[in-house]
Amino acid sequence: MKKLINRPDDVVEDALHGLERAHPHLLKVSFDPLFVMRADAPVVGKVGIVSGGGSGHEPMHSGFVGRGMLDAACPGAVFTSPTPDQMLAATRAVDGGAGVLHIVKNYTGDVMNFDIAAELVAEEGIAVASVVIDDDVAVENSIYTAGRRGVGATVLAEKICGAAAEEGQPLARVANLCRQVNECARSMGIALTSCIVPAAGRPTFAIGDGDMEVGIGIHGEPGRERMPLQTADEITDLLSSVILRDLPFVAGDRVIVMVNGMGGTPLIELYIVFRHLAAVCDQHQLIIERNLIGNYITSLEMAGCSITVLKADDELLRLWDAPVLTPALRW
Amino acid sequence: MKKLINRPDDVVEDALHGLERAHPHLLKVSFDPLFVMRADAPVVGKVGIVSGGGSGHEPMHSGFVGRGMLDAACPGAVFTSPTPDQMLAATRAVDGGAGVLHIVKNYTGDVMNFDIAAELVAEEGIAVASVVIDDDVAVENSIYTAGRRGVGATVLAEKICGAAAEEGQPLARVANLCRQVNECARSMGIALTSCIVPAAGRPTFAIGDGDMEVGIGIHGEPGRERMPLQTADEITDLLSSVILRDLPFVAGDRVIVMVNGMGGTPLIELYIVFRHLAAVCDQHQLIIERNLIGNYITSLEMAGCSITVLKADDELLRLWDAPVLTPALRW
Repeated sequence: MKKLINRPDDVVEDALHGLERAHPHLLKVSFDPLFVMRADAPVVGKVGIVSGGGSGHEPMHSGFVGRGMLDAACPGAVFTSPTPDQMLAATRAVDGGAGVLHIVKNYTGDVMNFDIAAELVAEEGIAVASVVIDDDVAVENSIYTAGRRGVGATVLAEKICGAAAEEGQPLARVANLCRQVNECARSMGIALTSCIVPAAGRPTFAIGDGDMEVGIGIHGEPGRERMPLQTADEITDLLSSVILRDLPFVAGDRVIVMVNGMGGTPLIELYIVFRHLAAVCDQHQLIIERNLIGNYITSLEMAGCSITVLKADDELLRLWDAPVLTPALRW
Repeated sequence: MKKLINRPDDVVEDALHGLERAHPHLLKVSFDPLFVMRADAPVVGKVGIVSGGGSGHEPMHSGFVGRGMLDAACPGAVFTSPTPDQMLAATRAVDGGAGVLHIVKNYTGDVMNFDIAAELVAEEGIAVASVVIDDDVAVENSIYTAGRRGVGATVLAEKICGAAAEEGQPLARVANLCRQVNECARSMGIALTSCIVPAAGRPTFAIGDGDMEVGIGIHGEPGRERMPLQTADEITDLLSSVILRDLPFVAGDRVIVMVNGMGGTPLIELYIVFRHLAAVCDQHQLIIERNLIGNYITSLEMAGCSITVLKADDELLRLWDAPVLTPALRW
């Protein structure tokens, strides 16, 4: 295992110390219980947006804390759900009186622990809404999931809901937007290599030198199929065909697309994938209104990528374009 | 070789097609000769900023084309200098009558070809200034270099000079700022793994499972020393001690620091490095005024990082903070 770390057990806290030191104007970190929050939280009268999940997917979620996106993120250990006490403390800390939205990726531990936290804060009189993201079309159930996994749509939901909350929309409306994003987004990914969880010290899965895992999960969970490595264009065809059929997307749809790197794939390759994805969208008469290309929801140093396509209306596009000021997304 | 590519020979052009399709409001691409230019170039009365070099270091340089940074970038084949005809065409295309600055990383081929291009455009009556960046403290000469290599300071120089040009400063002043950045910046990097040039299909160098290459070049050129992998804190001490001694930086200096990923290292690890780098700066009473953490000058999928420290005055900080709108840097 070759990593720029100190002790495997300290990876998450060491990185969060770095994050806090790098971005004091945007965020601050509570180390016990562990959560990252906006520097100016709670914002009175604004709906708070809280997400979280296992670490190892950076910049998601801590890198999305700041103005116009998340009010708080609860990082678990690498690839491990955070605990209810983290979510409870984060929710209390960011409640500005307008309630709090929990954006939860569909993994059994995340869902269970966010549910427990939501019940506890509700007893304290804080209004909480929860939306579970389950956009991964690769598999119906998986190791950590009943139903589909939550992946790339989470990034889009956090941006869009963060913008809606920032402009003062009420909790019910922000939660509905989150459901809309989830219902209108589909994702699928592929891995060329495994990743190594620091505490494990060995690859999460084995894969042959000439093979790829199609439909990979963000923790290295198996996908649909192991097959020989294909070209970028063929891989893009493969991922996009499943994604576009699933909603389905139809001619004339306006979309936001994300080509996301898994952590170990160079940016130059992601643009090669985007090139062909744009051609595929052209063929299907889908109008790419916005795009996001880079490492946003990763799996440590895994090589590979995922594609997310979101059907967007004027309101989603307007919220997408709204200002955002976080470590990882900024415009 | 596992990459998201089509044919190895098409990597650079395929990616540039994707880049152009993704960011039509920011840039456009000339494919013959090959260069990337600002969508609105030439900007009349503004100094043009042109850089370039081998591909494989993305987002540098093409990802820095846009308002407030580069007017044009000339991408060579992977790890191969671009040709004078690319630089010539790019310089002509962005000249808005106020002259053009060439920001050149110190590699023999880059320097020679930019020199040829500068002579040719000078004959056409375009005022050209050239500044060679050579900030890498690792080695004095190397495979591709007489003198020190140009690395991370290039990113900082392109941002700062781009801002100065944007606000209408004259060529001599913009070139002087570039020299100031180069003279006041020092960098050094480390690699945990090699990278694979697509056309070669095999690792550029071999490195043991427990080893790291200290002082690595951005093409995988050997550094100072091969040694057993150490902790992130020890590696940060090692890199920063060489960097800080070299200028030297002294107590009270205000600095911009960059912790740069080589392409295959997850963001979480770069924040771990930044955490300790900040502690080192505290010990030396260096004031970190700004920081940049992420993949900015990469070596394909190489795992590793580099640290750049720039001594900054009020003017450099003001220019650093000026708005920038490019695919890879945006604020």
